Amino acid sequence: MTTNSPKTGKLAECRKAHSHRTQKSRRANTLKAMSSEVLRMSSMFLRTLRDDPADADVTSAKLLIRAGYIRKVGPGLYSWLPLGLKVLRKIEGIIREELAKTGAQEVEFPVLLPKDPYTATNRWEEYGDNIFRVKDRHDQDYLLVPTAEEMFTLMVKDMYSSYKDLPVTLYQMKSKYRDEFRPRAGMIRGREFVMQDAYSFDMTEEDLKKSYAIQRDAYERIFKRLKVDYVMVHATSGPMGGSASEEFLAPLPIGEDTFAQAPSGASWNVEALTTVRPEDMDFSGVEPMVALETPDSATIDELVAKSNELHPRSDGREWAASDTLKNLLITVVHPTGEREVVAIGVPGDRQVDMKRLEASFTPAEIEEATAEDLAKFPELVKGYIGPSVLGPQSAQDAQGADDADGADGADSAEKKPRIKYLLDAHIARGSEWITGADEAGKHVYHAVYGRDFEANGFVEAVEVRSGDMSPDGSGPLSLERGVEIGQVFQLGLKYSKALDLTVLNENGKTVPVWMGCYGIGVSRVMSCIAEYHNDENGLKWPAAVAPAQVHVIATGRDQMAFETAETLVEQLAEAGIEVIFDDRAKVSPGIKFKDSELLGMPLIVVSGRDTVQNGTLEIRHRDGSATQVVPVAEAAEAIQAAVKAL
Amino acid sequence: MTTNSPKTGKLAECRKAHSHRTQKSRRANTLKAMSSEVLRMSSMFLRTLRDDPADADVTSAKLLIRAGYIRKVGPGLYSWLPLGLKVLRKIEGIIREELAKTGAQEVEFPVLLPKDPYTATNRWEEYGDNIFRVKDRHDQDYLLVPTAEEMFTLMVKDMYSSYKDLPVTLYQMKSKYRDEFRPRAGMIRGREFVMQDAYSFDMTEEDLKKSYAIQRDAYERIFKRLKVDYVMVHATSGPMGGSASEEFLAPLPIGEDTFAQAPSGASWNVEALTTVRPEDMDFSGVEPMVALETPDSATIDELVAKSNELHPRSDGREWAASDTLKNLLITVVHPTGEREVVAIGVPGDRQVDMKRLEASFTPAEIEEATAEDLAKFPELVKGYIGPSVLGPQSAQDAQGADDADGADGADSAEKKPRIKYLLDAHIARGSEWITGADEAGKHVYHAVYGRDFEANGFVEAVEVRSGDMSPDGSGPLSLERGVEIGQVFQLGLKYSKALDLTVLNENGKTVPVWMGCYGIGVSRVMSCIAEYHNDENGLKWPAAVAPAQVHVIATGRDQMAFETAETLVEQLAEAGIEVIFDDRAKVSPGIKFKDSELLGMPLIVVSGRDTVQNGTLEIRHRDGSATQVVPVAEAAEAIQAAVKAL
Repeated sequence: MTTNSPKTGKLAECRKAHSHRTQKSRRANTLKAMSSEVLRMSSMFLRTLRDDPADADVTSAKLLIRAGYIRKVGPGLYSWLPLGLKVLRKIEGIIREELAKTGAQEVEFPVLLPKDPYTATNRWEEYGDNIFRVKDRHDQDYLLVPTAEEMFTLMVKDMYSSYKDLPVTLYQMKSKYRDEFRPRAGMIRGREFVMQDAYSFDMTEEDLKKSYAIQRDAYERIFKRLKVDYVMVHATSGPMGGSASEEFLAPLPIGEDTFAQAPSGASWNVEALTTVRPEDMDFSGVEPMVALETPDSATIDELVAKSNELHPRSDGREWAASDTLKNLLITVVHPTGEREVVAIGVPGDRQVDMKRLEASFTPAEIEEATAEDLAKFPELVKGYIGPSVLGPQSAQDAQGADDADGADGADSAEKKPRIKYLLDAHIARGSEWITGADEAGKHVYHAVYGRDFEANGFVEAVEVRSGDMSPDGSGPLSLERGVEIGQVFQLGLKYSKALDLTVLNENGKTVPVWMGCYGIGVSRVMSCIAEYHNDENGLKWPAAVAPAQVHVIATGRDQMAFETAETLVEQLAEAGIEVIFDDRAKVSPGIKFKDSELLGMPLIVVSGRDTVQNGTLEIRHRDGSATQVVPVAEAAEAIQAAVKAL
Repeated sequence: MTTNSPKTGKLAECRKAHSHRTQKSRRANTLKAMSSEVLRMSSMFLRTLRDDPADADVTSAKLLIRAGYIRKVGPGLYSWLPLGLKVLRKIEGIIREELAKTGAQEVEFPVLLPKDPYTATNRWEEYGDNIFRVKDRHDQDYLLVPTAEEMFTLMVKDMYSSYKDLPVTLYQMKSKYRDEFRPRAGMIRGREFVMQDAYSFDMTEEDLKKSYAIQRDAYERIFKRLKVDYVMVHATSGPMGGSASEEFLAPLPIGEDTFAQAPSGASWNVEALTTVRPEDMDFSGVEPMVALETPDSATIDELVAKSNELHPRSDGREWAASDTLKNLLITVVHPTGEREVVAIGVPGDRQVDMKRLEASFTPAEIEEATAEDLAKFPELVKGYIGPSVLGPQSAQDAQGADDADGADGADSAEKKPRIKYLLDAHIARGSEWITGADEAGKHVYHAVYGRDFEANGFVEAVEVRSGDMSPDGSGPLSLERGVEIGQVFQLGLKYSKALDLTVLNENGKTVPVWMGCYGIGVSRVMSCIAEYHNDENGLKWPAAVAPAQVHVIATGRDQMAFETAETLVEQLAEAGIEVIFDDRAKVSPGIKFKDSELLGMPLIVVSGRDTVQNGTLEIRHRDGSATQVVPVAEAAEAIQAAVKAL
């Protein structure tokens, strides 16, 4: 057995000799570093699959698994095969480069984090079932990091204490964990996923805005380099309020987010979209409100049918769902735990969007009102609820409510224990409705908002529709689906206050630190790149993230084709070009071509029959844009030129 | 808001323009890659501490925390600050380079792993409290990866099926998790730690031995490049038997492992050490065995005192602990769950080593015998247990037992339900002892092993002592403490059989795959490097892992010193030398010097008063080996030469 004894007297001597050796090998490595690794398919840990894996539900997952980039090891859990890891590392490298330009510094926290900081910010509770919780052998609580605002806040608190230390932006590139109820779409919604999360720390809100802009710009550069399409949308800013958050969405039909785009190019996550209030309507010609019999009309469809049957309009047009005002009851659960029943009036032809509705009540949450909640309000008649038992009784009661945007403005003016009544923001003052008469089997007709009933305010309650007007006045919105690949967020003082992160300012006064947070779903971005860059034969990686730039295939039985390819591969590697070399013996040309298209390197070079017969090599662009036939002697140079032009 | 709309007709055009831009910036980056990053202390996220952190128990932890490389976030949980992450990445880089030379390919598994594979190998149970277990929201069991034999086995099973695919060696560089009862020594025994774990897959045991040798050699190269002392020791091979495992121990007094080194240089983990059987002794002159009164002599000390008082030796020498034979009872818990009481006879002057003893019984485990276990043996008299009620009654009964090494050979020859009796391997046949008479208050004297009592075999039961003979015959052993920084292990067929990893051999026959596993504790190695390379002033990083090669200090009030340093730093960065630049204004020279020694870059360059007055810079080696004073104009070149010579 070879042994390196540290205790022998010869140690110093050994060290000297050793150091000499190390230097030599370091020199060798430096030379080697100029040339690139060749991935030989004869020995590479790779198997391609002919068929789509049964449980892969999106193109990227199918292709990444079939092409041997990733494997599924459990719901929402993936392992990285050598090729997949290379793509991931390239994406991470591009992110690191761009973040370095912003001065952001990389640190790393454990995956396993103590509970306490997350209790201080209430996130231990708020996350509910969405985080993985762990108890150690001493029965202490831990969690697997979902995001790390708390830890970064505490790290800066530990290290810094003065305005002179700021600004600073820190980040980590590390796996994150969410116990998704239903993981889907491969790595797009996984339970363990790579995320880059950055946090900025500033003295003032203005400085925060600068840091935010710097990170947002870096994210734009990153997504452009990664060749992933993106749209920046105004996002729900949640507890922060205002427009302090933007999302980067990759427009893809498989996305779970819906965003609305205006003709101006501005975009919004539908949850963040503010409805343009319609102008007041002239109701001078509207008939007086009247309560009419509408038996068996608890649903909008039944009500419309019954209205047309029993109470046809005089103008010949039929009643439609858009003539009805549906009143639904929800329970708002305030952060204090208080449960408040609220009525929401929405046009009968629009679906309620619970996510948008909930966003209007943040930080409160909303639930369906329970029987117990409703028991306190015997005046409610199920299926026939109307404004006569809801909200303010007069415009005076509702004073100020018209201007309120959402729930916040609605606290005022309620003197009696009547249920707060909020109208969907699409409802114009002066508009006419069929709505509940608060009596079983009866609805009121010609009920005019502002004449016959009032409300406590407006709320974003219904789904945004294609064609709704853009808040920036540039015209009708179009709706698209997208995958959230990044988000930038002005956190403000939330975490610094919860965890007491303060510094001394120039006047020696203790002030809290302004924070921003910024995240990219790294493994998710990789899936999105694969979603954009593929065809029916496989992947088509952009050069910046491809595991190699060139895929060299040697085919046929003639040894010369293999030898020519071997020489070429060496030349390319020496020139620093990354190469996958299909040097497998006894594998048919057909399989090799198929594999090269499935794997998706930008350039495919074939050494085969033509090489033997005509002394030429074929250079194909995987994206189909060009094919070149070049003499063997000129091939290396031609390929280098093609790589440079990618 | 800037928006990149993928739906506009101008997209293709944008892409073209964009691709042009990307190329330009790529070229810029290539140029930039030649020059190195400068870490400016004015903006680097760093605070050094004057005092040792209260709860750091070893030098490396104290220094790494004081110098701002790591921070503790919980018991056995550390976060990485920017400088620490740089060292970690360099260590990882060296490991990756050396593993690439062996053809090993990198993959990565999730941290969160499903339970099933670990149930198949029984490790889910065997790990007991030592792993972190997690339940997801659907009540499914997961664990945080401790090591990943199971996952690698299944990955190869998924991908490979033929002898043509082998050999292959795969590895990952990723955090591992152990719920240590008492984390200690900073990152040396943490609960989340970075580990490189490799696994080899071969057709035959001979091929496994080749893969094993290749990985072992790579580990030697790695530890040499990292400048961490190591000793390769024969390790407990556990269930595998034989010498199929070796550990790399860093000799350090803070280590938890003890190893024994022979004059030949060969070393053993004491748990793996086989005692050299002493020659048989001539007992012809020994008096006949006699039972004598020894009241109140349940302990060895009491027995020796009482013997000298009541039964003094005739030859004038006093009785010593080494004359006594202590018989202790343990319970062997077999893998089947069966509990077997076994008596172990050990020289009274030697301490039992429970880890060595347990290793002799692997895969069974040992426990103290409980009152319930012992209730079946009323013949045992506590404090006076002797061979008359233990083991075989005659040499014939004990037939073959002399040759048996450890517990395995001891199954034979036992016909009556007497307790199995194993002697520590140091006990010579023919040696004379005072031992229990199996009667309260009495011991037998002149009891000769082989004349008056027999045993079922030998076992490694006691602590190895400095001066014990080496099994290789080269002389007395010396004992040292070490930290395990790596282990190489021939696993054999254990995992492939448990998880059914088979391939078709050349004859079309299904055969199991031979596996080896190899691990380096990456964050632990970093701590060991810090343990070796420091002095009272701070760290002294070897050049290969230092965050930067050069630490440039600008001091004093004269702007010229700062400008000179700035120019030098730019020159060095352009030459590809990594530099920490202490460009802090209004920080005293004393603090800057102290920080530079604490941080531990190999070269410290000072631009200060002498620069202003004499136009010179001082170049100091952090290890104290040399100091140079050079004219400013020659400094960059002199530093480059010094870096090359590191």
